[in-house]
This record gives sequence, structure tokens and C-alpha cells, in this order.
Amino acid sequence: MAVSESPVSQSAAVAAAPPAGTPALLTDRYELTMLAAALADGTADRRCTFEVFARRLPDGRRYGVMAGVARFLERLERFRFGDDELAAVSDFLDSRTVAWLADYRFGGEIDGYREGELYFPGSPVLTVRGSFAECVLLETLALSILNHDSAIASAAARMVTAAGSRPIIEMGSRRTHEDAAVAAARAAYLGGLSATSNLEAGRRYGVPTAGTSAHAFTLLHAAAGAGDPKSATAGELAAFRAQVATLGVDTTLLVDTYDITAGVENAIAAAGPELGGVRIDSGDLGVLARQVRVQLDDLGATSTRIVVSGDLDEYAIAALRSEPVDTYGVGTSLVTGSGAPTAGMVYKLVEVEGIPVTKRASHKESRGGTKHAYRAAKPSGTIVEEIISAVEQPDPHAIPETRGLTVTALQHPLVRDGDVVAGQPGLAAARDHLRAALISLPWEGLGLSHGDPAIPTRFISTSGTER
Amino acid sequence: MAVSESPVSQSAAVAAAPPAGTPALLTDRYELTMLAAALADGTADRRCTFEVFARRLPDGRRYGVMAGVARFLERLERFRFGDDELAAVSDFLDSRTVAWLADYRFGGEIDGYREGELYFPGSPVLTVRGSFAECVLLETLALSILNHDSAIASAAARMVTAAGSRPIIEMGSRRTHEDAAVAAARAAYLGGLSATSNLEAGRRYGVPTAGTSAHAFTLLHAAAGAGDPKSATAGELAAFRAQVATLGVDTTLLVDTYDITAGVENAIAAAGPELGGVRIDSGDLGVLARQVRVQLDDLGATSTRIVVSGDLDEYAIAALRSEPVDTYGVGTSLVTGSGAPTAGMVYKLVEVEGIPVTKRASHKESRGGTKHAYRAAKPSGTIVEEIISAVEQPDPHAIPETRGLTVTALQHPLVRDGDVVAGQPGLAAARDHLRAALISLPWEGLGLSHGDPAIPTRFISTSGTER
Repeated sequence: MAVSESPVSQSAAVAAAPPAGTPALLTDRYELTMLAAALADGTADRRCTFEVFARRLPDGRRYGVMAGVARFLERLERFRFGDDELAAVSDFLDSRTVAWLADYRFGGEIDGYREGELYFPGSPVLTVRGSFAECVLLETLALSILNHDSAIASAAARMVTAAGSRPIIEMGSRRTHEDAAVAAARAAYLGGLSATSNLEAGRRYGVPTAGTSAHAFTLLHAAAGAGDPKSATAGELAAFRAQVATLGVDTTLLVDTYDITAGVENAIAAAGPELGGVRIDSGDLGVLARQVRVQLDDLGATSTRIVVSGDLDEYAIAALRSEPVDTYGVGTSLVTGSGAPTAGMVYKLVEVEGIPVTKRASHKESRGGTKHAYRAAKPSGTIVEEIISAVEQPDPHAIPETRGLTVTALQHPLVRDGDVVAGQPGLAAARDHLRAALISLPWEGLGLSHGDPAIPTRFISTSGTER
Repeated sequence: MAVSESPVSQSAAVAAAPPAGTPALLTDRYELTMLAAALADGTADRRCTFEVFARRLPDGRRYGVMAGVARFLERLERFRFGDDELAAVSDFLDSRTVAWLADYRFGGEIDGYREGELYFPGSPVLTVRGSFAECVLLETLALSILNHDSAIASAAARMVTAAGSRPIIEMGSRRTHEDAAVAAARAAYLGGLSATSNLEAGRRYGVPTAGTSAHAFTLLHAAAGAGDPKSATAGELAAFRAQVATLGVDTTLLVDTYDITAGVENAIAAAGPELGGVRIDSGDLGVLARQVRVQLDDLGATSTRIVVSGDLDEYAIAALRSEPVDTYGVGTSLVTGSGAPTAGMVYKLVEVEGIPVTKRASHKESRGGTKHAYRAAKPSGTIVEEIISAVEQPDPHAIPETRGLTVTALQHPLVRDGDVVAGQPGLAAARDHLRAALISLPWEGLGLSHGDPAIPTRFISTSGTER
């Protein structure tokens, strides 16, 4: 019969079953028509390398956060064409192609940046090798997942930086697609947030969940006194008492339905000075937090936390730094990437049968050839540049102009012969990795204002020559 | 063995099975803790009305497009707590609440604006009536779906207006969450786009699918001649020949991998002057379209279509109005709502046991009481205002200041006793409804520039009094 006293609980069922079913049709039609044409003219088996990278960061951002790798690998393992999927594509594909799809299973190799790693313009965050046919089918799935999750994690990391040591709760599910919300909660947690309102993210990924009540609960109790401020306040007290009776005194009471000062009085009257927290969801949050802090302290509720929410983004969070705020709740701005709802990554063919290939007609030029990524850091740990090399460097420290620097390889094996390599780091490890990575940024890199990428990207064509 | 000759096909399997499983955990934790507290203090059964509305339109938008209704109803029918869901919530809920959830099935009433209807600030687009307990659980699911789908449909409608009679193909799946992409393709089609790249949207919703090839297909054939412009062009010709052999001469060839003029030459060399289309994905699309049109005409390919794509939004589409463009492809800007990735709708308790309730402490004031929505139009069909009434109007034409106007009720029954009312309009009907609704806007309403809502919203408290 016990109800959890804490507004935050860690679900026991970490990493429960993901949504069943194959993602094979979460794919753009042109991937299948290219496959059909390549099977017909004998080019389908050519050995190819595709790379995922972002040409640039969203406007003014200093870094990106790689996220979605585990989700991609999980869906990749289920990427099969069953009878239903084959039926759906057979109206525009020839029977040879349909038969090929019936046997499809990705059998190649995938390397990539680990989840929680920083990335910069041109970083080859995912490298997919195999036949043209098997690789071309993964473009949409890989990009959808990495672009979405990385956008959210990147925004989350900025908010966490702005919040300093204060925790942030993600509560944006209602402002994004219902399934995207689950992935957004995961990416936000990876990015450093402390909890989510989303119960499915709790079940599926073990993200701690949080939440106590909305204005509706207070209004439910106020009906009898509608129109009469005194009766409304009496209704609020009844609502608070009901919430405390069920959720315990450690709960957080929402005090801004009517008058905030009266709301805080009611809150302490209902819960006593041991009340866990009060939430303010509207108004000038800084002014109100100060006022509420004084009132709480005067009432002896010196350890009662102040939670603020309401259209917060990283700038609003930063603006509240000097205010007596204990916890932030963020919604819309987080799940929409705070102005950058997609990471803008692309999936490009860079090598065919060992020969670099590249598009030449446009401003969208990219560098051909499989790329190897390294990051150089000072002895202090501060990173200084991203090095993208056309050749694999057996000794990264021998790369020119890295004397005295520590050079680390960034790409890790994710898939071999179509199987996910065992021992991939989990969500908690990705979160820890990001926390450490953010500390490695030069100090300008943590700035919220618009600026250049925190470190430059240097492309080198051999171990000795820049290009 | 035949491959469809058209790049667009309508899937035979319209409205195939949606994703299985219950959406019960696509819910914010606080809905369940409120439920627990309300069950404990006896308020859970109070009769309530919740309304969904947008306080304002995204910055400068003239109208919103209601979308997602059918998806919401579909998921509502599966909204049940099974053993897995009950296990997931039992760590923070008491056994009485868990037992209540085990029997949960929404048994109330839902009314709403139909899909494809325009909405304006304050429009009560969805009204949910029933016990507090049964209604409060639907907040997140309703908002997630309506906020996402309406944001996409609203952006799509503006793009369709900008494109005039020219078709637009949605190809943004890669720039949004993989499941959101399917809903986005549906909403975009509702908004007036002609087709999508997303195969699952084709299977599940019958949205026509389109797509032929990417730069990767040309690069695949160019490997042998890498570094040599002549050989690269020979590779492009081989790629085009392969594509035409498999997809037919009505296919669309992507001509901007290398030199566009050489690309167009290759395209006609491969397909002949009956070629269906060429696509340009980079560069100054207006200049290039003009140049390519002249070249195609000179080559006798006078009916070959020109498809343009590459970071297009409604403004870029409009800027190409006078250019010889036949079809647009849009991606990122569409699936991210062209600057407004969420519709910003809220789900608010407005009435308890017949008594209006409303929050009073903040700038977020909303009007209490169940609301009834009507729209007034001139005899010409041009709409003039949204009328939100506190009382149901048996004769909408008797509403003050509507003399000579046609007044139409906007809310339709969607759910009765928990069952979806039979005969809900499908996707095609919603698309048709929107097309007609857009024609009813005052001419300023179709402007792409920032401005006020196309029509004002008038609130009346009785049949005779404004408030």
C-alpha cells in the first residue's frame, strides 16, 4: 500500500524490451529503388564505405553531443523484411529485389563515436562498411535516430552547464511526438538531466521518473468555491492535504494556481516545515523564487526545495543562477533541441572498392575516402583539435603538430559481420563520458552565446601531410 | 518482374495496422500520482471537462491546422494498463491505484475540431469529459499527438500555398525521430503535400510514396574514374542508364553530382527526351532551373519535369514561383514545423461538476467552463471570426453581431461512452477539408509574412453578452 515518498524513483526494469517489430520500412523509398537498379546492373556488391557526419553545427553552437548509438544498434538488429514489408514494397520493386530483401540482414561493419562523445563539424561519427546494397538501406534509420537524439542531447548538455549543480527534470513529452518523447527523455538523461516525467522512458531505459501534480489537481478541489478567492484557497489547502496524504511530506506542491503567497502558506499548513518542495510554474521566476525562499524560511521550512518551470531554456536557466532555485523543470525547449531540432547529420558514400569518391557540383562538397578521427588534448586534459585523417594512424601521437599532446582515437567498433560487438557502453556510461568530455572543453566551449566550434577540425591526408 | 514506372505509387494497403501495444506509459508520471491522491480523497469521480487549446499561434502565424485526431483516437482505443505497465508503475503507486489502473478504460466523451480544420488562439480543439480520474490520464498522449501533428500540418499548408499548383514531395524522415517521421509524413499529406519518401507512411496511411535515387548511386558508378572529370561523367552516364533500365524513362535523374550541364546531357543520353524528370539538389536553384529548362528544351525534352530540393522552406518555395520548377522536395523545414516544431497546445481542466474553474495566479490565465466553438463566414464563404461561447447555441445564427453571416459549429462528436463514434472522416477527407478551409481565409490569412491571426477570436458568455 506504500506510495513512494520521493518524487523521483529509478525504475527497477532497466532496458526493458524496446518496441517490437522491424524498422525496415522506416526507410526512404529511393534506397530501395537504388538497390533495384544496382542489383540489375551488377554494382550492388561493390564494397562501400558510408560516413555519417555534420557539415556544421547548428547556428552558433560550440559542440555537438553524439547520442542514439544504442537505439540505432537495437533497431539494426531487428532490421528485416518480413512478409508484410515485402508486400508493401512489391508494388514498386521487381521480384529479384524483393527476393533479395527477403534474405536481407546487414552483414558489414560499423564503427562510430561512442554515445556521449563530443563531435564537431566533419567528425565521422558513424562509418558503415559493406556492400553498396546492404549499406544503402540504412541511411534513413541511422540519420533519423542520430539526428534526433543528438539534437536533444546537445541541447540538454547546454542546459546542464547553465544549471551548474542544480538538477533539471525533463517534462517535455507533451510537446513532441509521443514516441519521440521517449527517445528525447533518454537523450536528455544522457545529456545530464536528472529525471524525466515520461514513464515509458523509465520502463524502457531506466531513466529516473519524476512528477507530483498539476494545476488540475488543485482546481479539482476548488470547484465548490469557484469565484470566491477565499473558497478557492480553501480548495487548494484540501488539494495539498490530499497530495501529502498520498505522496508524503517529501512531495512537491504546486503553489501558483491562485495567489503564490497564500499557496506557500497552504503548502506548509498541509505538509509542515518538512515539505520536500514547492513548484512555481509561471510569472517572473527569479522574483518569485526569492520571495518564496524568504517566506519558506520564515515558516521554518528552510530545507524545502524550490522547483521552477515554465518555458525555460538554457538562457533562462542561466539567468536564474543567482536566485534561490533548487531544481529546474524544462519541457518544450528541450524536446525541440532549443532552436536546433535536428542535428543536420548526413549519410554519404565516401569510398567504393577502396577508391575515394566525392560529389563535386555544389557547395555541399565533402571529402572522399574513409576517415579516421583523433582528438588532441593538452596534458591538462583540455582538448585542442579534432584531427580527421585519410589514413589510419598506428601511432596517433606521431601525427604532425601534436607534440606534447595526448591524441586519442575516437572511433570504436560497433558492428562486425553484422553482429553488434559485445560490451557496448550503456546509458549511464554514456552520461558519465559526456560529463567528463564537457570538462575537457576549452573554457569558451561552454559558453552559451553563439560562437565558433570549441575546437577546430584539421584534415590530414597522410601521416605527414596536411591537405 | 515489372518495376513501377512511376516514382509515385499509392500503396494498396491503406490504413494497415498501427504499431501494436498500449500507449499507457506514454504518459507523465504526475498524471498517475494525481490519480492516486484523488482516489484516496474521494475526488477521483468528480465529473470534469478538460479542453485542449493553443493560447497563441506560433510567432507570426495566421492560422493553425488541426491534425492528429485519427491517430489519437486509434491510440486511445489501445490505452490499457497490462501486466507490464502495472509492474512499471507499482513502484511509486499504492495498490488501490494499481488495481484501478488494471480496469482502466476511458469511458467518457470527447468532442473536437475535425482533422484539417483551421484553428486560432483559444479554439477549443478537443474537449474531454468524464471523471477526473479517467480524463487526467490522457493529457500527455493527447497533447503529444496533437502538438506534433498540428505543427507539421500547419507548416505544410503554408508550403502548399507557396507552391501554388506545383506538387511538393516530403522527404524529411532523416531529420526527425524515426517514428515521428511516419506521423510527419501523414500530417504533411494532410497539409496538402503530394507524396512522401517514407515507406511506412505509405503502408500505414496510404500516403503516396516517391523517390528514385541519391548521389550515392552516381558515385557508386564513378569509382573507376575517380579524380578524372571525364571518367566521372562516364560513370554518371552508366548510373543513369542503370536507373532508367530498372525504373523506366519516366524516372527522375539526379543531375548535380558533378557538372549540372553535363549531368543533363547524360540524363537525356540515357533516357531520351521522354525522361520524366531531373532533380537539382544544390546551388542557386532558380538560376539552375532556368538554365536546365533551356537545355532540356533544346534537347527536345520539353516535358521533362524539373524537381528541386535542398533546404527548402515556404519562403524559398515562394521565391522560386517565377522559375521553371515543376516539383519541390522538402525535408528538414517540414518535419521541424518550419521554425515552430510544436503547436503549443495545452490540456486544461475547465469545469468540475458543472462549475467553471480557472487558474488565476499568472499570465497564463485561461477561461473556465466548457466552451462551444463556432465560425462565422460571409455569404462569399470568407470567414470573419471564431466565436467561443460559454453556452451551447441551439441556433448559432442568433449569436449577436452575426447578422448576414453563416455560422457553423466546429466541434464534432469523436468518442461516446469511451467508444470512437463511427464514421470519422479519413485522411483524404481531412486533406480535402483543409483545402476548402484555406480558400475560406481572408486574403491576408494566406500571407507568409508574420502577422496577426487571420480572424479574431470572440468570447461570449451567453447568447447575448460579450465578456
